[in-house]
Amino acid sequence: MNAPTDRSLPATSRWRTLASYAAMLAATGGIYLWIRSRGEQLRAPVAAPATLSDGHGHTGELAQLLLALAAITLLARLLGGVFRRYLRQPPVIGEIVAGLVLGPSVLGLLWPQAHAFLLPESVAPSLGVISKIGVVLFMFLVGLELDPKLLRGNTHSTIAVPHASIVVPFLLGATLALWIYPRYSNASVGFTAFSLFIGVSLSITAFPVLARILRDRRAQKTRLGATALACAAVDDVSAWTLLALVVGIATAKMSGAMWTVAYVALYVVGMLFVIRPLLQRFFVRREQQREGPLTHSALAFVFVALLASAVATEAIGIHALFGAFLLGAILPHEGRLASELRGKIEDVVLVLFLPSFFAFTGLRTSIGLLESSRDWLFCGLIVAVAIAGKFGGSLVAARLAGMGWRHSAALGILMNTRGLMELIVLNLGLDLGVISPTVFTMMVFMALVTTFMASPLLDLLLGRRGFEDPPTGASAVVVGPG
Amino acid sequence: MNAPTDRSLPATSRWRTLASYAAMLAATGGIYLWIRSRGEQLRAPVAAPATLSDGHGHTGELAQLLLALAAITLLARLLGGVFRRYLRQPPVIGEIVAGLVLGPSVLGLLWPQAHAFLLPESVAPSLGVISKIGVVLFMFLVGLELDPKLLRGNTHSTIAVPHASIVVPFLLGATLALWIYPRYSNASVGFTAFSLFIGVSLSITAFPVLARILRDRRAQKTRLGATALACAAVDDVSAWTLLALVVGIATAKMSGAMWTVAYVALYVVGMLFVIRPLLQRFFVRREQQREGPLTHSALAFVFVALLASAVATEAIGIHALFGAFLLGAILPHEGRLASELRGKIEDVVLVLFLPSFFAFTGLRTSIGLLESSRDWLFCGLIVAVAIAGKFGGSLVAARLAGMGWRHSAALGILMNTRGLMELIVLNLGLDLGVISPTVFTMMVFMALVTTFMASPLLDLLLGRRGFEDPPTGASAVVVGPG
Repeated sequence: MNAPTDRSLPATSRWRTLASYAAMLAATGGIYLWIRSRGEQLRAPVAAPATLSDGHGHTGELAQLLLALAAITLLARLLGGVFRRYLRQPPVIGEIVAGLVLGPSVLGLLWPQAHAFLLPESVAPSLGVISKIGVVLFMFLVGLELDPKLLRGNTHSTIAVPHASIVVPFLLGATLALWIYPRYSNASVGFTAFSLFIGVSLSITAFPVLARILRDRRAQKTRLGATALACAAVDDVSAWTLLALVVGIATAKMSGAMWTVAYVALYVVGMLFVIRPLLQRFFVRREQQREGPLTHSALAFVFVALLASAVATEAIGIHALFGAFLLGAILPHEGRLASELRGKIEDVVLVLFLPSFFAFTGLRTSIGLLESSRDWLFCGLIVAVAIAGKFGGSLVAARLAGMGWRHSAALGILMNTRGLMELIVLNLGLDLGVISPTVFTMMVFMALVTTFMASPLLDLLLGRRGFEDPPTGASAVVVGPG
Repeated sequence: MNAPTDRSLPATSRWRTLASYAAMLAATGGIYLWIRSRGEQLRAPVAAPATLSDGHGHTGELAQLLLALAAITLLARLLGGVFRRYLRQPPVIGEIVAGLVLGPSVLGLLWPQAHAFLLPESVAPSLGVISKIGVVLFMFLVGLELDPKLLRGNTHSTIAVPHASIVVPFLLGATLALWIYPRYSNASVGFTAFSLFIGVSLSITAFPVLARILRDRRAQKTRLGATALACAAVDDVSAWTLLALVVGIATAKMSGAMWTVAYVALYVVGMLFVIRPLLQRFFVRREQQREGPLTHSALAFVFVALLASAVATEAIGIHALFGAFLLGAILPHEGRLASELRGKIEDVVLVLFLPSFFAFTGLRTSIGLLESSRDWLFCGLIVAVAIAGKFGGSLVAARLAGMGWRHSAALGILMNTRGLMELIVLNLGLDLGVISPTVFTMMVFMALVTTFMASPLLDLLLGRRGFEDPPTGASAVVVGPG
């Protein structure tokens, strides 16, 4: 009975234990029933004390939210797999489509009962909280992945292409606003904010989707791939800076816009030349030298810095997303810190949070808002202008910089992917009230079409291995050692 | 200019580039101003289309939420560090205290402006969403860490102690309810649900806190430590099963309670004998053999299973937490899957989500509700009964099972830690409306006191190395090979 290796009791003792266990249970039950008989005559004070509780309904809401998350995560994985395997698209496009499918545009039209069961109106605010936290974390990751080396490769192509691919769609978008504004905007938004927003949102390139397409084709290290990555990085930084200004202007309604611009400049300079060296000196260097995995304190510190930077950008009148992005961008990209941070949060963000964002976007996208043929005409016009501006601008600029036709066209196609970055921008515009739900729906459609067309067009143009050809006539396209 | 290693352009070309860049910017600005002058005369349709947007206020809400999260994460880390370093307490106690400090009980009383700035009422629903998701994920992790071997070591102590440490506080708590119910409950809750809940919530042991205390003292592998872990594991499973029934009864208001019991039994049996083998066969085995890190698909699959299990438990009338816990418990604990899952989500849950849960708990805890000396008398009574039941019950049972006095007392102290598990149970009771905010506040106080007293009492009783003594007269306390 006391042999150190004997982990069970002998049989007789076990029976005795079971018997006493049963007796104990019976006694407990008996005693409780007696207590209950005494208590049932008691009266509780009738009025409830000042209630801080959320009341009875709340657990039902939790079940709703969990059900919605389960449906979202499942469908996102399924469609992501289908798009990857059968349509040879990056899975993220399937995830975006999954969000739209669960929304009023597809499930709500085809099977309203299922839509009301899985994603009722009441779940939208909770989903919004999750998707906003998720997008803030995601933008931090995008900043963390932004390779500063990509911003430094000054060649004709990497200067000309990103700027042309912002300026041309921006001007075309602003011009297009002349026709959209009087038809689909509302009077609470001025033309300036509206046209700036439309212009900038046509200039967005989805760096993550573009990188994913190149990775799928093992083309990051080819000249064309490296040029595309560099152009997209420059494009991203420029377009988001421009967007920050637009948000500042839209929020301040022109009156305080100059102040916002000054604050933004001050903030960026402060982050680069004060916070970055401080972080480097007091945090990063210690973390890089430390042994063992990332500590909770370090992770918490980065979270707090990320949240503080996001709050700071909100306080000066631009969106929290910029603060999250910039903090990611100023953290050092070499060494273990960045990769460990990514390892800790990337998977949870990509698997659990981002699909919620797509579903939240899907909930706000309603194809039903496009009723007349005029609506569809404008929707097509937006798609056409977006392609003309981004694809056309990039193609012409690359050609002028000395690249061959085929590679110039491929670069244009890649720059034309807008993917989830566009969705983030559009949600921001909708939140701010700069664009109406109808314009939002049209622009979501445009984002999907321009992203979706990239892979098949690249296949047509280059074949699966076309990236590996030496570029023709691209004497100036020299980027990186790869 | 076209040397493959030359990444920058020659100086003349660079000047030309800069000049054309400036010209391009000027031209863009000019063209945009012309577009704008055309657009400013336009009138937008006055009425906004059917609005799906959240309106202007929403970005302000996001800033509020991010600010609250920053304050919560920061204070939780700070107090966690203070409690660990200066009070020799597990950091989680400091994090719990941080949540209370940010709530109306401390900051709200001492500096209401700061409280209103950092954690206004409007942020509570968003914080609730984050904290609920966080607790569901946390319970999954608790299940994932539950070592089934701990449940199998049948010795006198590991049978007698956990059951005594549930039965005694349960009966004492139910008896105490005879006095609390007529004073602090409200009429919408029957005595049965109330007394069952009070009884069960006094029976909770915080397995994570207990494990943490033992780890801090390097005592998990000692006999006393192993016995305590085994007792806490059995206690946890039993108390949570009991709690599931109580929730079922409270929700069904006795009428459908028998159905709930039947459903729960069916659910548990189904998870153990249908889902577990299926998972083992079609998912786990493949994952264990796979090379490389955990894939997104596997992570998404586990998330979906976790959410589905949580929704299933909600559907049968018990709380989502049980479903999350049980899914964690039935996943295999050996091999890489469990440790990789923990590696992916544990840090984010512990660093970002749990402090939000503590802050949410703190927001609902209001010391101001305890006004009269009678309130404080009852608060003290609850603490006394909780200690008498849990510490007393465990001590007597361990002594009867043959352990020495000192080690029996140490075991009693360890079983008496309630920590964050108690907070989870209490929030559940408040959500269901079983307990009032006043009782909630009293019970939170009790949870803190009983958890806080463990470390100093253990130091007094055993010294820092007392665990390593060979147990005296503990011939039957044989647990595990350690």
